Amino acid sequence: MSAERVDVREKVLSASDQLAAEIRARLEANGVFAVNLISSPGSGKTTLLERTVDLMKESLRLGVVAGDVQTRNDADRLLRHEIPVEAIETGGGCHLDARQVSKSLEGLDLSKTDLLFIENVGNLVCPSSFDLGESMKVVLMSVTEGEDKPLKYPAAFKRARVLVLTKTDLVPHLQFSPDHAIENARAVNPDLTVFSTSSYTGEGLAEWTGWLAGQVAVLKRNKGSGESAGP
Amino acid sequence: MSAERVDVREKVLSASDQLAAEIRARLEANGVFAVNLISSPGSGKTTLLERTVDLMKESLRLGVVAGDVQTRNDADRLLRHEIPVEAIETGGGCHLDARQVSKSLEGLDLSKTDLLFIENVGNLVCPSSFDLGESMKVVLMSVTEGEDKPLKYPAAFKRARVLVLTKTDLVPHLQFSPDHAIENARAVNPDLTVFSTSSYTGEGLAEWTGWLAGQVAVLKRNKGSGESAGP
Repeated sequence: MSAERVDVREKVLSASDQLAAEIRARLEANGVFAVNLISSPGSGKTTLLERTVDLMKESLRLGVVAGDVQTRNDADRLLRHEIPVEAIETGGGCHLDARQVSKSLEGLDLSKTDLLFIENVGNLVCPSSFDLGESMKVVLMSVTEGEDKPLKYPAAFKRARVLVLTKTDLVPHLQFSPDHAIENARAVNPDLTVFSTSSYTGEGLAEWTGWLAGQVAVLKRNKGSGESAGP
Repeated sequence: MSAERVDVREKVLSASDQLAAEIRARLEANGVFAVNLISSPGSGKTTLLERTVDLMKESLRLGVVAGDVQTRNDADRLLRHEIPVEAIETGGGCHLDARQVSKSLEGLDLSKTDLLFIENVGNLVCPSSFDLGESMKVVLMSVTEGEDKPLKYPAAFKRARVLVLTKTDLVPHLQFSPDHAIENARAVNPDLTVFSTSSYTGEGLAEWTGWLAGQVAVLKRNKGSGESAGP
């Protein structure tokens, strides 16, 4: 890569990081806990979100920013669950960027949001390099993807706070060891919190949503505003 | 994106396309049919390749260039099948580029290769934009990924000549319609040749490898060299 290109890239990244910092400040000012969901295409991000919002929307005020390379399919699926959803179509772009997210947040009332999900483009490589101002990154990995994914795509696992293993109902039909996969993930990032889930059977969803609710509660308490987290 | 960045990017792409054209000429001069395999992480590229080389290595001279973001895991798995394999670790890069492939080809004897597989980095977005000098792109999609992937990630399906649907043995355990997925893929690219395969049960592998062997035979015939395709 030429020095010229690196310079331009650094400028672009730095402007993006600046904007991410602004988003983070806006979210914090409004007491919003924001989760940036990263995974391969087809790992089950949207289905997990559908189950998650159904379990959480009675007790917390939710919002979603749903990114896709093309189509509004994911956003449309989530809108059926009667929560505020903003769609981003990247038009070929391989990750969400802070500019897109910042613009989408204009469509949501952050003062009435406790928990925001940002569903990134399906891509285990590029999205992990971009700060969107989120509170934390969550990496999803389905049990059909093979145990060595954390070793082969380490950046996403390194930068995530949480690993959600999805589609565990399929384990009996696969040559896949969840323990081995989790061991590989922890070799890359020993601090990962791990949830094993099936959006089909519901396994692990109470633990996952309970943990998320706890994160929101901690944020509210630290903010010390005494605001209600109820809808 | 700044005009400056676009200019630099165009220069980089153009140099890359130039190098891809050089690779294509080298492959053609040696009568090598080259397949660039593109898919999400965990779609089963390496496992399909393992089965494919086992079925084809007695009748054709094979070679593999195996790309990964990190580790040589895929290359090591393929080396066990006693064929020439070159590994590329992109070190974070989200796709293979022509420079990497060109360098890897130095490690293979192209004059003794009939069929070359280039296993791209697991990513359904970025690799589709980069010409590696291949004879054709093949996109893989596993049945666990959901029927709408071709609509959401159209570039890979548009630019591919072949779709290999993988892991069909799992269909009974999923809410997934192969027909619907193939219909979506053909909505994006009506000319796609489609193979439905399971590397586990062997379904569809005879059709897939037979078709590949036919492509190699056509290339040899068109080259009109009268060379033997045997090892």
